[in-house]
Amino acid sequence: MPDINKIFSEKLIVINMGLESFNTDLKTQDVQSMQVNWRPPSEASKKLSLLEGDSVSEKIDVANKEAIARLLAAEPIIVGIGTAGTHIPGMTKNTILHAGPPIAWEQMSEPLKGAIVGGLIYEGLVLNEEEGRILASSGEIIFDSCHHHCTVGPMAGVVTSSMPVWILKNKTFGNFAYCTLNEGLGKVLRFGAFSPEVIDRLNWMENILAPVLKEALEIKGSIDLKSIIAQSLQMGDEGHNRNKAGTSLLFRELAPSIVKTKYSKDEKAEVLTFIDKNDHFFLNVSMPACKCSLDPLSDIPNSTVVYAMSRNGTNFGIRVAGTGDEWFTAPCALVKGLYFPGFEEKDANPDIGDSCITETAGIGGFAMATAPAIVQFVGGTPKDAINYTTSMYEITCTENNSFKIPNINFRGTPTGIDIRKVIEIGILPVINTGIACNRAGIGQVGAGIVRPPMKCFEDALTSFLTKII
Amino acid sequence: MPDINKIFSEKLIVINMGLESFNTDLKTQDVQSMQVNWRPPSEASKKLSLLEGDSVSEKIDVANKEAIARLLAAEPIIVGIGTAGTHIPGMTKNTILHAGPPIAWEQMSEPLKGAIVGGLIYEGLVLNEEEGRILASSGEIIFDSCHHHCTVGPMAGVVTSSMPVWILKNKTFGNFAYCTLNEGLGKVLRFGAFSPEVIDRLNWMENILAPVLKEALEIKGSIDLKSIIAQSLQMGDEGHNRNKAGTSLLFRELAPSIVKTKYSKDEKAEVLTFIDKNDHFFLNVSMPACKCSLDPLSDIPNSTVVYAMSRNGTNFGIRVAGTGDEWFTAPCALVKGLYFPGFEEKDANPDIGDSCITETAGIGGFAMATAPAIVQFVGGTPKDAINYTTSMYEITCTENNSFKIPNINFRGTPTGIDIRKVIEIGILPVINTGIACNRAGIGQVGAGIVRPPMKCFEDALTSFLTKII
Repeated sequence: MPDINKIFSEKLIVINMGLESFNTDLKTQDVQSMQVNWRPPSEASKKLSLLEGDSVSEKIDVANKEAIARLLAAEPIIVGIGTAGTHIPGMTKNTILHAGPPIAWEQMSEPLKGAIVGGLIYEGLVLNEEEGRILASSGEIIFDSCHHHCTVGPMAGVVTSSMPVWILKNKTFGNFAYCTLNEGLGKVLRFGAFSPEVIDRLNWMENILAPVLKEALEIKGSIDLKSIIAQSLQMGDEGHNRNKAGTSLLFRELAPSIVKTKYSKDEKAEVLTFIDKNDHFFLNVSMPACKCSLDPLSDIPNSTVVYAMSRNGTNFGIRVAGTGDEWFTAPCALVKGLYFPGFEEKDANPDIGDSCITETAGIGGFAMATAPAIVQFVGGTPKDAINYTTSMYEITCTENNSFKIPNINFRGTPTGIDIRKVIEIGILPVINTGIACNRAGIGQVGAGIVRPPMKCFEDALTSFLTKII
Repeated sequence: MPDINKIFSEKLIVINMGLESFNTDLKTQDVQSMQVNWRPPSEASKKLSLLEGDSVSEKIDVANKEAIARLLAAEPIIVGIGTAGTHIPGMTKNTILHAGPPIAWEQMSEPLKGAIVGGLIYEGLVLNEEEGRILASSGEIIFDSCHHHCTVGPMAGVVTSSMPVWILKNKTFGNFAYCTLNEGLGKVLRFGAFSPEVIDRLNWMENILAPVLKEALEIKGSIDLKSIIAQSLQMGDEGHNRNKAGTSLLFRELAPSIVKTKYSKDEKAEVLTFIDKNDHFFLNVSMPACKCSLDPLSDIPNSTVVYAMSRNGTNFGIRVAGTGDEWFTAPCALVKGLYFPGFEEKDANPDIGDSCITETAGIGGFAMATAPAIVQFVGGTPKDAINYTTSMYEITCTENNSFKIPNINFRGTPTGIDIRKVIEIGILPVINTGIACNRAGIGQVGAGIVRPPMKCFEDALTSFLTKII
C-alpha cells in the first residue's frame, strides 16, 4: 500500500489553510482540525510594495503623524442647539441630507426612503407615503450626504430644514459639526418609520425639547465632550451602541440649567423624562464629537489615515486624509447580530448610517473591550468584545491618550485606521450597529456587528498611489 | 563532599512553605523561588470538624439556604426622606449613633471623636471642640451603634437627631433602614472634620437638600434600588467606593420630580448641582439598601452566614445569622492604599465605618471585577480587581442572581459570607474603603484595601458551636 493511502485508515489531525468551509466540514465530522488564518496576498496588497521605498514611506509617516496629532488634539464641545436650515452650511428648504456617501433616490434602500418620506411629511410638504415617494422622485428635492455639510446622522441620517440640531465645535481647530437630536428606540424616523407617532415626536422635539435645551445651554455655556466620552468609557459605554453612561453624564450636566430656563415645570420635567427614558440620547452628540474631531484630517497629502466611514444602506464609503474629498464605495454588508422578537435576518436591511464615525475616531466597536455588557445587545461574549478591541490595534496608528480602557490595563483606544495595515493584515475595522428593517415604515429590528467591504480600502489605495506628492 | 553540600555550589530553584519573608529574601537575591499558599491549620479550623457530622452539617445547609433565599429575595426601595430623631427607632435628642460595634467615648478613635464633636456643634449643644469633648465625656450623651437602630453610616457614621435621613424599605420583608445624606469628599463630618464649612454644609443639607428631596420623592413615589444597583454594576461601579453610575442613575430618577417641587429655580438647581458634584452621593443609599437586605438574616438559628460587618475605627465587628445580635470584635487593621497629596501611612486611622455592609451583601470589594477603574482610587491593577472578586467565591455561599459582572462572563457577585469557609480556607473578606486621618478635624487622607481580623470569625465560630439547636 503506498504511504499516501495510509491516511485513510489512520486518525486524522488536520491543519487547513485557505477556504474555511473545509475546516467547518471536518469539525462537523468530529475530525480534530484547525484553521490557519492566512489568505493569498490580494492584488491590492501587492500594490503596497509601491509605498515601501524609503522616501515614500517617510513621507507617509510624517503625514500620518500629523493626522494623528490633529485627531488627538481635538477638543469637541457642545456650543448650542440650532435649526438645520439656519445653521448647517449649504442647507436649503428643499435639501434633504442623508447618511453615507451620496446616492440617488432610485438607488436608496427602503429604510432611507422611509425616513425621507417621514422627513417630507414632517416638513408639511406631503401628506402621506404615496405623495412623499412622488415628490422625492420628482427631482425637486436635493439629496446630499450629511458628511458634505459638516453633519452626521445615525441610521438613515435624514436631516430636513426645520429639524433642531446639536451645534458642536472642535475648539482646537474652530470647525463645527451638526447632528439631529436622538428620538429614542422603536418606531423612529432614523430607522425608516414615518407613522403619526414618529411625526408627533419630531414636532414635540422641535417645539419643546430643542427650545428648552437651547436656553439651558445658553445658561450653562459649552459642555466638554472629550471629558464626558473619556469618563463614559470607564463606565461601560463604547460610545456607539452603549451610551447609557454618556447619556447619564450629559443629563447631569444639563439638568441644573434646564431647571433655570423660563419654561413651565411640566415642560422641563417632560424634557428630563424624555432624556432619562432614552439611553441612546448621547449617541447624537458622540457622533458629531467624532465628526468634528476627524474633519481637520481631510486635507493631509500623503496620509493613509481614514477620516470618514459611512453607509447609506446601499453603499459603504470611506474617505482618506491623503485623497481628500473622494469617496471609495462598495455595496454594504449585512449585519450579524441579535434580532428583536418577531424579526429575523430576512427582515434586515444592509448596514446603514453615519454612526461608524465613532469607530473611525477609535471608539464604538474599537472600544468594545471597555463595554462587555454590550454583548447582550449586539451578540457574542465578553471575550469577543476584548478581542474586537485588541485586533483593532493591528490596523491603527496609535492609542488614544485620553480615552482609556480599564479592562485592558488602561490602554488607550485603538485610533487612526491606516489603509495600508487594513490591506496588508487583512483585518477590517469592526463596527457595532443597529439593524434597520428592509421595508420602509417599520423601524429597528436588531443590532450586531459588521465590517466594511475590503474594496473600499483597495480602491482608496489605488487612488492614493496617484496622489502622493 | 556529602550530597547536601552540593546545593551551595548549584543554581537553586526554591519552593517555600510557611513564612513568606523567606521567599521575599530569596527573590531579592535573584533566586528563582515560589511561595506555596499554605498555612498550618489554626486552632479554630480544628473546631470546624465539630460541624462535620451529617446531622449538624445538614442543619447548617438548610439554615444557610434560608439565609441566602432571604438575601436574594430582598427588594430594597427608597420610600422617602425623614429626620433621624423622628424616624429612626430608639433615637432621642441626646443619642448619637456611630459606625461599627458599640464603643465607649474613651475607646473611640480620633476621627470618630471629631465627628461627634461636629455633631454636637451642628445640634447647637456646644460651641467648639473643647466644649464638645467635655459634653461627650460627661455621660449625658448616649452613644450607640447605628446597626442597633436599623441604620448604617459611612466612616464615623455619626447620626444626630436633627439630621435628615434616607428612609429605605425591604419590600419583601417590610423592614426599614436609614442613612444620612452624603456630604461629598474632602472636609466632611464622616471623616472626622467639624470646621464651620462642615457645619454650614450640614445646615444647608437639613434646610434645602432634604426638603427638596423629600417633596420630590412624595411626587415620584418609591425608587427601586435593586434595579439601579444591578445597572450600576454594569457601568463600572462596585457600589462602595465607586458610585458614579449609581449616583447618575439616581440623579436621573430624581431630577424630573425635583423640577416639579414647590421650591425656587435656584434652590432646585443648587440641589441638582450638589448631587452632580458628588459621585459618592449614591453610597448613602447603596449602604442602607444592603442593610435592609441583610437584616432579615439576623435570626436564623444554625446559619453560618455573616449578616453584618462593621468598624468603629478601634474595633472591627461581625454578626452571624446563627448567633443573633452578638458582635464578634477585634482591633481594626490599617488600610493599604493610595494617599492624597500631603498625607502618608502615619496619618491614617485604622479601618472605620459601616460601609462594609456592601461587601457583606456581596458588592463593594466583592464586585471589584466589574469596576476596574477603581484601582486608580484604591491602588492595584485591573487584574487585582478581578482576583479580589474571584477569590471571594471561595468564601461565599452563592452567586447573586440579579447583580451580574459582565467582565467575568456575567457571573453573579459572590454572595453570603460563610464563616466556615473563611476559617477553613483562610481567605478573609476583601473590603475597599476610604482612609480617615488619625487626628480629629482633618478628614479623608486616602483610600485602599483592608480585611477584617480573622479573630472575629474564630470567635463567631466558638459562639456558634454553643448555639446549634
